[in-house]
Amino acid sequence: MKFIKDFNTGDRIADIYLCKHMQNATTKNGKTYYSVTLQDKTGTVDAKVWEPNSEGIDDFSDLDYIDVYGEVTSFNGALQVNIKRARLCHEGEYDPAMYLPVSEKNPETMYAELLKLVDSVSNKYLKALLVALFKEDKAFIKSFKKSSAAKSVHHGFIGGLLEHTLSVTKMCDYFSNTYPAINRDLLITAALCHDIGKTRELSLFPTNDYTDEGQFIGHIVMGSEMVAEKIRDIADFPILLKQELQHCILSHHGKFEYGSPKTPAIIEAMALHLADNTDAKLETFSEILKNTNEVGWLGYNKLMESNLFDTRVES
Amino acid sequence: MKFIKDFNTGDRIADIYLCKHMQNATTKNGKTYYSVTLQDKTGTVDAKVWEPNSEGIDDFSDLDYIDVYGEVTSFNGALQVNIKRARLCHEGEYDPAMYLPVSEKNPETMYAELLKLVDSVSNKYLKALLVALFKEDKAFIKSFKKSSAAKSVHHGFIGGLLEHTLSVTKMCDYFSNTYPAINRDLLITAALCHDIGKTRELSLFPTNDYTDEGQFIGHIVMGSEMVAEKIRDIADFPILLKQELQHCILSHHGKFEYGSPKTPAIIEAMALHLADNTDAKLETFSEILKNTNEVGWLGYNKLMESNLFDTRVES
Amino acid sequence: MKFIKDFNTGDRIADIYLCKHMQNATTKNGKTYYSVTLQDKTGTVDAKVWEPNSEGIDDFSDLDYIDVYGEVTSFNGALQVNIKRARLCHEGEYDPAMYLPVSEKNPETMYAELLKLVDSVSNKYLKALLVALFKEDKAFIKSFKKSSAAKSVHHGFIGGLLEHTLSVTKMCDYFSNTYPAINRDLLITAALCHDIGKTRELSLFPTNDYTDEGQFIGHIVMGSEMVAEKIRDIADFPILLKQELQHCILSHHGKFEYGSPKTPAIIEAMALHLADNTDAKLETFSEILKNTNEVGWLGYNKLMESNLFDTRVES
Amino acid sequence: MKFIKDFNTGDRIADIYLCKHMQNATTKNGKTYYSVTLQDKTGTVDAKVWEPNSEGIDDFSDLDYIDVYGEVTSFNGALQVNIKRARLCHEGEYDPAMYLPVSEKNPETMYAELLKLVDSVSNKYLKALLVALFKEDKAFIKSFKKSSAAKSVHHGFIGGLLEHTLSVTKMCDYFSNTYPAINRDLLITAALCHDIGKTRELSLFPTNDYTDEGQFIGHIVMGSEMVAEKIRDIADFPILLKQELQHCILSHHGKFEYGSPKTPAIIEAMALHLADNTDAKLETFSEILKNTNEVGWLGYNKLMESNLFDTRVES
Amino acid sequence: MKFIKDFNTGDRIADIYLCKHMQNATTKNGKTYYSVTLQDKTGTVDAKVWEPNSEGIDDFSDLDYIDVYGEVTSFNGALQVNIKRARLCHEGEYDPAMYLPVSEKNPETMYAELLKLVDSVSNKYLKALLVALFKEDKAFIKSFKKSSAAKSVHHGFIGGLLEHTLSVTKMCDYFSNTYPAINRDLLITAALCHDIGKTRELSLFPTNDYTDEGQFIGHIVMGSEMVAEKIRDIADFPILLKQELQHCILSHHGKFEYGSPKTPAIIEAMALHLADNTDAKLETFSEILKNTNEVGWLGYNKLMESNLFDTRVES
Amino acid sequence: MKFIKDFNTGDRIADIYLCKHMQNATTKNGKTYYSVTLQDKTGTVDAKVWEPNSEGIDDFSDLDYIDVYGEVTSFNGALQVNIKRARLCHEGEYDPAMYLPVSEKNPETMYAELLKLVDSVSNKYLKALLVALFKEDKAFIKSFKKSSAAKSVHHGFIGGLLEHTLSVTKMCDYFSNTYPAINRDLLITAALCHDIGKTRELSLFPTNDYTDEGQFIGHIVMGSEMVAEKIRDIADFPILLKQELQHCILSHHGKFEYGSPKTPAIIEAMALHLADNTDAKLETFSEILKNTNEVGWLGYNKLMESNLFDTRVES
Repeated sequence: MKFIKDFNTGDRIADIYLCKHMQNATTKNGKTYYSVTLQDKTGTVDAKVWEPNSEGIDDFSDLDYIDVYGEVTSFNGALQVNIKRARLCHEGEYDPAMYLPVSEKNPETMYAELLKLVDSVSNKYLKALLVALFKEDKAFIKSFKKSSAAKSVHHGFIGGLLEHTLSVTKMCDYFSNTYPAINRDLLITAALCHDIGKTRELSLFPTNDYTDEGQFIGHIVMGSEMVAEKIRDIADFPILLKQELQHCILSHHGKFEYGSPKTPAIIEAMALHLADNTDAKLETFSEILKNTNEVGWLGYNKLMESNLFDTRVES
Repeated sequence: MKFIKDFNTGDRIADIYLCKHMQNATTKNGKTYYSVTLQDKTGTVDAKVWEPNSEGIDDFSDLDYIDVYGEVTSFNGALQVNIKRARLCHEGEYDPAMYLPVSEKNPETMYAELLKLVDSVSNKYLKALLVALFKEDKAFIKSFKKSSAAKSVHHGFIGGLLEHTLSVTKMCDYFSNTYPAINRDLLITAALCHDIGKTRELSLFPTNDYTDEGQFIGHIVMGSEMVAEKIRDIADFPILLKQELQHCILSHHGKFEYGSPKTPAIIEAMALHLADNTDAKLETFSEILKNTNEVGWLGYNKLMESNLFDTRVES
Repeated sequence: MKFIKDFNTGDRIADIYLCKHMQNATTKNGKTYYSVTLQDKTGTVDAKVWEPNSEGIDDFSDLDYIDVYGEVTSFNGALQVNIKRARLCHEGEYDPAMYLPVSEKNPETMYAELLKLVDSVSNKYLKALLVALFKEDKAFIKSFKKSSAAKSVHHGFIGGLLEHTLSVTKMCDYFSNTYPAINRDLLITAALCHDIGKTRELSLFPTNDYTDEGQFIGHIVMGSEMVAEKIRDIADFPILLKQELQHCILSHHGKFEYGSPKTPAIIEAMALHLADNTDAKLETFSEILKNTNEVGWLGYNKLMESNLFDTRVES
Repeated sequence: MKFIKDFNTGDRIADIYLCKHMQNATTKNGKTYYSVTLQDKTGTVDAKVWEPNSEGIDDFSDLDYIDVYGEVTSFNGALQVNIKRARLCHEGEYDPAMYLPVSEKNPETMYAELLKLVDSVSNKYLKALLVALFKEDKAFIKSFKKSSAAKSVHHGFIGGLLEHTLSVTKMCDYFSNTYPAINRDLLITAALCHDIGKTRELSLFPTNDYTDEGQFIGHIVMGSEMVAEKIRDIADFPILLKQELQHCILSHHGKFEYGSPKTPAIIEAMALHLADNTDAKLETFSEILKNTNEVGWLGYNKLMESNLFDTRVES
Repeated sequence: MKFIKDFNTGDRIADIYLCKHMQNATTKNGKTYYSVTLQDKTGTVDAKVWEPNSEGIDDFSDLDYIDVYGEVTSFNGALQVNIKRARLCHEGEYDPAMYLPVSEKNPETMYAELLKLVDSVSNKYLKALLVALFKEDKAFIKSFKKSSAAKSVHHGFIGGLLEHTLSVTKMCDYFSNTYPAINRDLLITAALCHDIGKTRELSLFPTNDYTDEGQFIGHIVMGSEMVAEKIRDIADFPILLKQELQHCILSHHGKFEYGSPKTPAIIEAMALHLADNTDAKLETFSEILKNTNEVGWLGYNKLMESNLFDTRVES
Repeated sequence: MKFIKDFNTGDRIADIYLCKHMQNATTKNGKTYYSVTLQDKTGTVDAKVWEPNSEGIDDFSDLDYIDVYGEVTSFNGALQVNIKRARLCHEGEYDPAMYLPVSEKNPETMYAELLKLVDSVSNKYLKALLVALFKEDKAFIKSFKKSSAAKSVHHGFIGGLLEHTLSVTKMCDYFSNTYPAINRDLLITAALCHDIGKTRELSLFPTNDYTDEGQFIGHIVMGSEMVAEKIRDIADFPILLKQELQHCILSHHGKFEYGSPKTPAIIEAMALHLADNTDAKLETFSEILKNTNEVGWLGYNKLMESNLFDTRVES
């Protein structure tokens, strides 16, 4: 299969792609056409069906898989596929895994690593909470493994939430070893739970878009609520410990401006915020470098507030 | 009884006051004395016991009521009571209501008005929620009536939360009549519930200070949780309606910078935020004017970001 | 007559519209065409004359009324009228009221309500000022009734200034009843006058654009000057009262950042600012909901700094 | 006469000083004393009358001149005069000029220079305006010469407004020669008038405090109004020129945050703003250096947002 | 030669222009064309070669000079040249000076003026530094004369750095005469050196783009380093004077937000910052007025944070 | 020896302390006394000599060691030593290490760890630079080991710079292992060098105050210069590598607002900034917890922008 990231002007393509979105449109002269976004796990590309009522063009709509025959052209500096034929496929003809962005790391290996971190927590109440969530709640576990950590920006792929959570928790483990004032059990637990609200903030792939609940409540408050809910079933869970854990989740964006209703008041909350921010920044930067084909200066990047440079240019 | 707000330099006093706070201290010459804050419902005043081990001075501590004999002097431009005798009182000797700041309005009258607003809601789910909270939950009702709306700033007195909630809800009622796009039932319900988290964010008088839960979680998230908890017991409560209601509470500070984890996404949330902000600003301004003895220019006020002027100077 | 807000792709139209703006343009191939904006009271639409020198196309220019024959197409997701014939109309053929955005409320009814508020002011100097402006100055009254309150944003239609002024003044009346510290006469007068500078900041419809004076001086300072000018003719007007009134107008945007050269120093100025802000926000939100055809999430709105949601989706 | 800036601990003083402010106070032991601020043209000093009812102490109050006999001590790191005798003086015993801060430059020389700049304007309308203000309006001229340019900060002395106006206008003259796009007549006129509102924003010395009008309206809007008032009497003054001139005054603080209701829209307004800002910054810095007795690092200065250093240390 | 700033729709052109940039592109229909930017000293214009493989079209690329035959059309409101024939030219056929933006002032005259300012410095160490840079370092002098002061914004032309440096230094000379606290020798030297880092931050014309060093280090730090390097060769250069001079360069943007790692701590640094800012603002405004063909209101300008107006409209 | 952090009201002390600062002062009654700050490695305390001319009081001044006999009292809520006798000590009587704040970790052990990191760099140019600095430059090494990382805030003790540098470099090592896009050699080198400018920004203990160079240039630019200087002696050091390294140092504060003249453009600069910020925040928090005697809520902390809580309260 020819992947979208390898398309070049002039290529002819004849493969199955996911139709992420399609819409009817009219040219200036009043002619109808279809504007389509094709997707595979390597990216998306704009496509057009200029003759929608011609023979080879089946009826299809959002999230259908279609067998496309066409040509890659370029328009306004971006690639565009001119679709000549489009056949609607049925399940079995394609492997869905080929069409959705997915972590490069093995999810089961990552989850096993995460469970080891769960096992390393010695406080019995916190351990009970983690077991209830990450070992016993099958629905949650399934959703947690499939979620992305974002709609776009960093970790925006299947398994992204798991990958990000693992990376943050391991960094928190490193911090616990370096700064003795940190209560390791509390920090590891907070790190493992900090983004669990994302399992309900974003719908699963292929849509991966904000849910109503995500828009109205947000993953920060939802994560705090999910933790409180699980704790309700753990006898004698210390009230102060519960509040500190919720506080870590609520304050993990670090500042009011970034949507946290509280700023970090305990060193574990501060450590979690710093680990989350560091992983977000360095993973975003890594993804930018991985996704660019340019060398040297990459232009101004709004998120990083800087003109970026690819140091790999040297080697 | 001589109230603290009426003290003048040179007065002799001989009455019972609440000892809000006391602490041992040492003069430059190494002599021990007591530094005391006296309180009644009209305010607080600094006081000193210069001869702590003399005959007329009983042992007393924070939140005791003491029968004070002394003289009002002034130090560094502020009044200071020189306590000559201090007798520890026992319950029955004093009326606690005389010693705590309290709303000028009758709490039962206000609560009756609030219940009328509850009755005016026609959506059966929202009505059920309001009834469960404001008519059936005795512990909540008791605490709601006694709470202040703030540690200081505006409505910082017993009954302040009730007074503020009523004022905001009535203003929301006015807005519902003026802007037809507003869903009145949703807005009235959100207004009645917007600050209920404050019953747990601040401890009751006489301490009226932040609780651990208040510091770690905050009344905004706590209010949202309390509403969610009540809704759990109401069969078939529409999920979207629940999210919109929680959203109104979560976003009622209007901006991230003010501690809201979400900004108003629906017109009812926007209306609630505007009513809350308006009542806070105009009540604060009213309290400043009520509490000043100056006329004309009152100096720069940080909260209002302006040098303030008392317009009553004209009359 | 077919209104613009009801246009759909594929419609044929044959009606008179206002040409708000037209301009010569050239296609990529060097062919000349006209780019035209058509307007009626329900909105505007982009239009093109592809054959400008053909028989049925009269000479016309900005603010002419033209009898259009054409077809509605869509281009880049927006509607576009392909004009086949365009005949220049003369006065009498059309009713101008059909072509300009106009308040949905009756102007004379609103003005009568406003005059009742004028009559309710008891301070004789303030009453004299209001009478001079709103009852005796015919030129001002005429312009006040026709002005919009904005170039775009909220109340951007004929009668918009009157509608906004009335709404703000009534809210101030409500505030006066709720907060006893407020001097009602001063606040009602300030509310009625707060935006009178807009009669000169924006030219009347159909242009409704900033005047030189509006750009150089601005409606805030102009309104303060207009009040000062009228007061000059009222014997013994108290100097402090005049300054307080001007202060209310100058500070009604609330903060320096919003173009007020002073921040509210008196409770009446603060109340006016809050009423003005509240009406602006809730009216803008109402107009957004009225003008959208979407349901549910409406996308990020810059003014409201939030992704907006239409709660009417439920019913 | 011994000037205040030359006082040292241990000095005995016996001279006449202005009592800027006095107030009754009580020591911790209940003893009454007077707290007094003495002033001469070189500064102010704190003073105390510990025996207010003793023989040598006359009755006196704010803005009286008193013949002081006493001793300079130090308290909490600042000088303090211990007043032993205080005799109330009558006019004629002292020279008021010795007691008020005053420009080091000759006011008449400065005014003559200013009039030359008036004469250099060739546009007849602008010239007429400047003549009406600076040559014919005796009351204005008298007040203009005596005003300070600020309550504190820079140019906070008699003649300060004249000195600042002259400095800004000369700098604008320099700019007019350097940047040909500038309309010199407009800029010179705007520079001469930019701060005339200060004659009414601050009361004259010795009080030099904000007037009600200054607080409510502010010198920016007042200056614009004063110019408009004078122009009313000049036949055929071009309307656009009037608006541009008012615009220069209204926008001379450069940004909304600094209290300008408009930002500079024409190059003359921009030039005026830059000259005003430059003179303010460099004069403030010069005054800091003149008033310090320290050498080298002077500590953090809030206005300059930097730790300052006195470069004269080298010589 | 017909200059680009004089192009109008419909013109036929037949002249040599610099090809600043060219790139292959494909139309929606898959047809290849060239997108070209033509430049002469008066500006740039977009151009297209629709038939790239036709006879009259030579091979050419970035920074080639080409003899163009074509027609001026307009597309989306901007001019566009339709290139029919394009012949590659060789050196000698054209005068490069015609194709690069260049100061309107004579560089040698400006440099002579600059040298006079160098001669006016009396401190022997500072004089030695200036001589080493501006009289003896041939490579530096050559580059300094050819550099622009910016990639775009103000002084973005050959000789721009020299013109800006001279203007700032003369203004600093004016300040030295006005504010006696200023050490003139230090300020003049700092002004002459403040932007010398720009000779290495931007490559020379015709590219005039940021160098790697410019992006990584920036002209502020580079200028400070260049001065330190020259001082290394001057025996006994006073260490404090060196630090003050570097400080002036490092702090000349005035605030951290504008990329200065230090804020002005000495009056000379403050004066330099104000002169630099003033010249930048007034020159930018002058260039806007010079480059516009509009009269009256010019629209919102982001840099100036205001809607601009051309006052020349009056004459 | 009795350490200052263990002082309590009522204690009698008789030990040698460092006189950090002393100054003559006068009481209200004109009596002279000495105000003294005593220091040992556990902190500082205010002290007074009320009878400076009495027998037991030697002459002493800043940075002398004195043998103190006195009593601990409290004034305004803080401890104060009443010095009865003060004998000037000579070298040999005391161990200076007891009087200066010092890292709790062994400097030689830390330095050995640092050298291992130096050895781990494989790029020969970067290795040469690190060897020249950390192995061969004896003066630098001596100063580097003794420097603090700050005047106050975090790591404000002898060895603090070494401890902070080591902690940041090890965290960068962790990042290099986690994010494969990072060039480890560049990042480790940048981390080791990022704060070397501090050896010249702050003078050594006991003064530990900003130097002139520190104030005028700052450690960021100084560190970049120091690296450039060493590189000058390394043949063929790649120019781009040098610029990237300087860039990492210049941008390590992450934002303009924090005094960096550049924002991170390469992933190594971003990683260094995040490690530096993380160590600063978590070490500051750790020091706050170590230095407080309170339990539970510690009050609002400006640096952390939050009310802090000590989680150790639970255990």
